[in-house]
Amino acid sequence: MHIAIIGAAGMIGRKLTERLVSDRSLAGQAVTRLSLVDVVQPSVPQGFSGRVDASAVDISSAGQAGRVVSSRPDVIFHLAAIVSAEAELDFEKGYGINLEGTRALFEAIRLAHLQDGYRPCVVFTSSIAVFGTPMPDVIPDDFNLTPLTSYGTQKAMSELLLADYTRRGFIDGIGIRLPTVCVRPGKPNKAASGFFSGIIREPLAGQPAILPVPDTVRHWHASPRSAIGFLIHAASIDLEPLGSQRSLTMPGVSASVGEQIEALRSIAGDKAVALIRREPDALVMKIVSGWARAFAPERAAGLGFVAETSFEEIIRVHIEDELEGKI
Amino acid sequence: MHIAIIGAAGMIGRKLTERLVSDRSLAGQAVTRLSLVDVVQPSVPQGFSGRVDASAVDISSAGQAGRVVSSRPDVIFHLAAIVSAEAELDFEKGYGINLEGTRALFEAIRLAHLQDGYRPCVVFTSSIAVFGTPMPDVIPDDFNLTPLTSYGTQKAMSELLLADYTRRGFIDGIGIRLPTVCVRPGKPNKAASGFFSGIIREPLAGQPAILPVPDTVRHWHASPRSAIGFLIHAASIDLEPLGSQRSLTMPGVSASVGEQIEALRSIAGDKAVALIRREPDALVMKIVSGWARAFAPERAAGLGFVAETSFEEIIRVHIEDELEGKI
Repeated sequence: MHIAIIGAAGMIGRKLTERLVSDRSLAGQAVTRLSLVDVVQPSVPQGFSGRVDASAVDISSAGQAGRVVSSRPDVIFHLAAIVSAEAELDFEKGYGINLEGTRALFEAIRLAHLQDGYRPCVVFTSSIAVFGTPMPDVIPDDFNLTPLTSYGTQKAMSELLLADYTRRGFIDGIGIRLPTVCVRPGKPNKAASGFFSGIIREPLAGQPAILPVPDTVRHWHASPRSAIGFLIHAASIDLEPLGSQRSLTMPGVSASVGEQIEALRSIAGDKAVALIRREPDALVMKIVSGWARAFAPERAAGLGFVAETSFEEIIRVHIEDELEGKI
Repeated sequence: MHIAIIGAAGMIGRKLTERLVSDRSLAGQAVTRLSLVDVVQPSVPQGFSGRVDASAVDISSAGQAGRVVSSRPDVIFHLAAIVSAEAELDFEKGYGINLEGTRALFEAIRLAHLQDGYRPCVVFTSSIAVFGTPMPDVIPDDFNLTPLTSYGTQKAMSELLLADYTRRGFIDGIGIRLPTVCVRPGKPNKAASGFFSGIIREPLAGQPAILPVPDTVRHWHASPRSAIGFLIHAASIDLEPLGSQRSLTMPGVSASVGEQIEALRSIAGDKAVALIRREPDALVMKIVSGWARAFAPERAAGLGFVAETSFEEIIRVHIEDELEGKI
């Protein structure tokens, strides 16, 4: 099986690559080839016996998506995105990558389909940012998409494209609406949601962290490990039961910032909590105020997608996966 | 007031032009200039004392949308579209005009906004084709968009763009989800919904008409006169109360094909009804089977949008407006 990962140099892309190398198979088939693509050169994974092509490609540039498709990967994970706060600050860049990049990829696949019937499985990472206020406390699967950010708009538009290209038979697509991934390892990125990870990750490492929103802010989370699990599961199941509605909200944990801080306290004590510094940020508060607080992701649950069940568990997964089990 | 109409050569565009020339004002301001744009040369209306520019422009071609925007119209009616059946048959043309054309127009406005703060009112004709099965018998205003055609997908994506460009302050936009306009005058177009008009228009003119779907098919209709009324009203009201949800379903009449035929019988007799020939068409039936049957368009009603209240009234409007009151 030949697998392409677009956005392979990002946090999720790197972890997905590691997992595929470690699993050696996907959906019961041996992984024989990896095509790793990102706007920056992705690193080649250690310990993989098959062929690896790693290349710096911007799929939104003319003809570049065709390069990815020319080798006819069986499964394409499309993770590449400009994150929420950056897409809000740089309107052109956000639409360029998040909308036009996705459309360029789908178009390259369609042209290949017209040549030789190529029809890959495409796993697309959408986001719960497709939802916006007014919304209920717990959002059902059939709730309408009213994004309040350019990022959410671009993801919602891409979901519509994914459904149409699937309906027309060019791809076998699934859109995975990721919860806010937490705890993200490494350095903060430009996502408006970055602080959710920061207030756990930095104190666990003995570092101060900035909290730009009130403790009452409630949001929907899953660990990086769960996010990778969603992607692997999406590429492993029969997508026919999805019918025409090809994007679905993933399971997660609904927790307020206050509850997250108490979970940190229960695991790492008052000293860790004391490292959180409150610095309200109007832009982040405005973006986050339009975000979803909780979901009833029944379709995903019915299809076997699973996540953590408490915020303590999310913190423990971080400690296991990133801190070698020690704090 | 300077008004641009994109798609001015189409049926709705011509009727809107006539109405503006006849009204001489819009939203209480004198209409002093009309810019009429279409892929084919629009005709110049009779009896208008202001300036008229009529030009053949494809807004999806590089730089062409900028030409429309360069004269800074106060109101832009964006009606240009590849209709449903044609967008289904010609995938590239549908996305080219319905998605990329709309995006090119909005981008041209955004670039003008960055130059001098230009922020026109944009009235965009969306469609009830943004909805798809599964759906309830009567669709509420907050129902999610799950289009089952490429046309519906392109309209839903354009609605998302309209909301985001409005939120960012580049346009003051409103999306009008038109019911299937009926009775369309003139020749059949390539819309899958064309027969709804044909089975009324042709028999009233003593001509045979083809009915490609069963009598049980139920759908949502308004007259061309109402459609023009929606557009004029949309450009006349304060759009601020729409908030972030800038597209709304228009009022109409829910009628089955059987009820439409009985309405025709009550007005024009058995002889007219006998001209309807049943010729089932699999493609049309497939497209129409995913269409909405009825709506509860409360937001539009609350904002003062009005349509006919019976299918007989829709037929009578056709007779008044197109047949000089005589059959």
